[in-house]
Amino acid sequence: MVKLIALYKKPEDKEAFDEHYFNTHAPITEKIPGLRKMKVTKVVGSPMGESDYHLLCEMYYDDHESFKKAMKTDEAKASGKDLMGFAGELVTLMIGEEVDES
Amino acid sequence: MVKLIALYKKPEDKEAFDEHYFNTHAPITEKIPGLRKMKVTKVVGSPMGESDYHLLCEMYYDDHESFKKAMKTDEAKASGKDLMGFAGELVTLMIGEEVDES
Repeated sequence: MVKLIALYKKPEDKEAFDEHYFNTHAPITEKIPGLRKMKVTKVVGSPMGESDYHLLCEMYYDDHESFKKAMKTDEAKASGKDLMGFAGELVTLMIGEEVDES
Repeated sequence: MVKLIALYKKPEDKEAFDEHYFNTHAPITEKIPGLRKMKVTKVVGSPMGESDYHLLCEMYYDDHESFKKAMKTDEAKASGKDLMGFAGELVTLMIGEEVDES
């Protein structure tokens, strides 16, 4: 499967971020056609103690073609616009291919 | 579940990195007692084109207690030592809690 990975740095106001993320951004994103699964992980620290990161979201698509098609939909554009509005400075986006599972 | 996330920046020599990662580092890491699942994702780009990152590895444990216990084992120490040797400058480690699956 192909997944879009969104990694968010720690926001200044975590509560405001989470409120927007879980109540507004995630519901908008979940509507993107072709999205198979969305997995959210809270970053709670690192083996060294604190982490610079706050949240990781993995959004699964069948393949690169489905992903590209999905990104052209109005729903994806709405999600992207919302993302840039509340977390443009915090987010890093990556496209990944799962290669192994054991 | 609790997961240890290792995110690797792009190495200078991708082939040498992958050779060490898949043939040496992953087999050492898979031996850590308490590790339930290890999921490796190749980063192949970003919606904007290139990505600064190369690989994401997610290592699942039952809970924080199991994870802490695992980190104290000889196997985890061997994995950590190997990691610092080949990718100390490239890796970011995060501890995460999965909060949602849809």
